[in-house]
Amino acid sequence: MPNPTAAMLVIGDEILSGRTRDANTHHLAGVLTERGIDLKEVRVVSDDHGAIVAAVKALSKAVDHVFTSGGIGPTHDDITADAVAAAFDRPIDVRDDARALLQAHYDRSGQELNAARLRMARIPEGATLIDNPVSTAPGFTIENVHVMAGVPSVFNAMVQSVIPTLTGGAPMLSETWRVQRGEGDLAEPLALIAAEFADLSVGSYPFQKDGRYGSNIVIRGQDAARLDVAMAKLKDIFPA
Amino acid sequence: MPNPTAAMLVIGDEILSGRTRDANTHHLAGVLTERGIDLKEVRVVSDDHGAIVAAVKALSKAVDHVFTSGGIGPTHDDITADAVAAAFDRPIDVRDDARALLQAHYDRSGQELNAARLRMARIPEGATLIDNPVSTAPGFTIENVHVMAGVPSVFNAMVQSVIPTLTGGAPMLSETWRVQRGEGDLAEPLALIAAEFADLSVGSYPFQKDGRYGSNIVIRGQDAARLDVAMAKLKDIFPA
Repeated sequence: MPNPTAAMLVIGDEILSGRTRDANTHHLAGVLTERGIDLKEVRVVSDDHGAIVAAVKALSKAVDHVFTSGGIGPTHDDITADAVAAAFDRPIDVRDDARALLQAHYDRSGQELNAARLRMARIPEGATLIDNPVSTAPGFTIENVHVMAGVPSVFNAMVQSVIPTLTGGAPMLSETWRVQRGEGDLAEPLALIAAEFADLSVGSYPFQKDGRYGSNIVIRGQDAARLDVAMAKLKDIFPA
Repeated sequence: MPNPTAAMLVIGDEILSGRTRDANTHHLAGVLTERGIDLKEVRVVSDDHGAIVAAVKALSKAVDHVFTSGGIGPTHDDITADAVAAAFDRPIDVRDDARALLQAHYDRSGQELNAARLRMARIPEGATLIDNPVSTAPGFTIENVHVMAGVPSVFNAMVQSVIPTLTGGAPMLSETWRVQRGEGDLAEPLALIAAEFADLSVGSYPFQKDGRYGSNIVIRGQDAARLDVAMAKLKDIFPA
């Protein structure tokens, strides 16, 4: 059975302007690979209602799980929850259980649950909450879309809350062999290995270090024994 | 006149598997912002012909310039050039000027221009070459799509070759003000500033440091004087 598929949707002008470098995609990619869920696509869009709605619609149709990052805080530029609700044509309003979580949190810290903070309790109808052990304000899952915060510590915690609830596949195993030769010298033998081991994926990732070219050859697959055979062949062709 | 728009398309299984963290998007985002070209969307897709073709078609229609990264080397998994040619329904073959560049390069280094390396001279009909001062093998521009290498040093050099050929807009200016208070306390005054300065964009980016919440407030716009007025107002409301 093929592995479940996923897509990541990063929401935020700060990524597109180059102000902030997205860290959440790389984290999620590693977690999904371990879980045997294939990340098929990533999109980054701006804090724009239409752009978010269009991306949620397209991705939620294309893959089994969509993970979003960003735009669920209390400020005026946090429009993700409303956009996701619109994508699924659902009403959205402050929900009692989410409000209670926030109320208890701000009571503990002696802060006021003001109108801005209360926006973080706006949840589309029919969604389930995603636990946020870092800063309380919950994410939510609606249909196959998991809506999470952009702050990396909170995003990572929410990923940890969601992942155990998903059915995983066979984890993708991967082995890397570093070769101190340019890709042009590797291409032909690599193509032969790729053809022989069609059930595995053979990738070549060139690098340049101290003026010399080299390549990391990565073989991926779900069958550890096959991976071993292919790696042995590779090391035979390109000894250390 | 609104600024020209752009999209970035990153091609590579190694990003989606979490093996490699993409660095090229962040670099391009900063360069485009300086040049006054608005990066509207980023997509990451796998080394899959259909996925690349679909993304090139969608993005090249949606924005003024598409920049791609990855998949133009000599190995079997480098399929970007063929996919981009297919997206525009153009034939692709080894081109004499690209072959001459490679021939001279490998002659200098005493290496053979073998069949694998010659694949890097495959250029879709009607494209113009993008200079690669780092490792010679050229990128190319076809229609509004700029096809570049994935290795960051080569990608950055190609970006530097392409950017001066593009018409820029008014550079986006940005000022940041760091406030040691949670977003929930900032939201209302920020929304007022955002409403008053509708020609600017006001963003709030929360962080957590040493157990305390704070937020970087970023105001962006093309009019330096307006930006100054808005920043003065902001600092008035939230003194250092």
